[in-house]
Amino acid sequence: MSWLDSVKWDRDGLVPAIAQEAGSGDVLMVAWMNREALARTAELGQAVYFSRSRQRLWHKGEESGHFQQVHELRLDCDADVVLLKVTQLGHQPGVACHTGRHSCFFQKLDNEVWTSVEPVLVDPERLYNK
Amino acid sequence: MSWLDSVKWDRDGLVPAIAQEAGSGDVLMVAWMNREALARTAELGQAVYFSRSRQRLWHKGEESGHFQQVHELRLDCDADVVLLKVTQLGHQPGVACHTGRHSCFFQKLDNEVWTSVEPVLVDPERLYNK
Repeated sequence: MSWLDSVKWDRDGLVPAIAQEAGSGDVLMVAWMNREALARTAELGQAVYFSRSRQRLWHKGEESGHFQQVHELRLDCDADVVLLKVTQLGHQPGVACHTGRHSCFFQKLDNEVWTSVEPVLVDPERLYNK
Repeated sequence: MSWLDSVKWDRDGLVPAIAQEAGSGDVLMVAWMNREALARTAELGQAVYFSRSRQRLWHKGEESGHFQQVHELRLDCDADVVLLKVTQLGHQPGVACHTGRHSCFFQKLDNEVWTSVEPVLVDPERLYNK
């Protein structure tokens, strides 16, 4: 039995995958993986997700060059969420978000308003149009 | 418009919610929230999830006494994942997992085998039968 069979895929064959920065502990992003994405991630040592909008494998960084080096893979007690300890490559500090920010979790609830609290480090136009 | 309307609930009316320990940065667990759970979490300052298995609100700690104090709520760029910065109450160090471990992410992929790498801090029998 493969380690991939231990994962409890949802009705769409997916699990959420959290990318956490190894050095800082910052939660950078959450994306989804199917069985093939998780297998490829383990083989490559770089994060490969499944894009739900494009319905295909998405090797993070394939367009931007901002790959994620994967140091460790974790599975939770229910076997339905994956945690990746990563180094976010391509910029210092790492830019994981398509908005050009370090982390996708840049909106903080403040007096019942979601407020952007993290700076844009890279112009998103420059991330994708090189 | 309410801040709750900014959240992109999935077809079941849920979003994944990550509980991250404020002090250590450790990712403790992932559960799900519906609109009411997120509203209650913000009101209470303690994590309230929606249990998919029991199909009801689940005030984390209601049985074990291990409540999660919420310091901060974050929303990601796609508005479909919530991140909670918490203090895990009830034990030192915090025990977030129903197995009696600090974190639910205690299985590490090691040579194609998921291996438990975190100690059980509290007998799970004692967590729920008091």
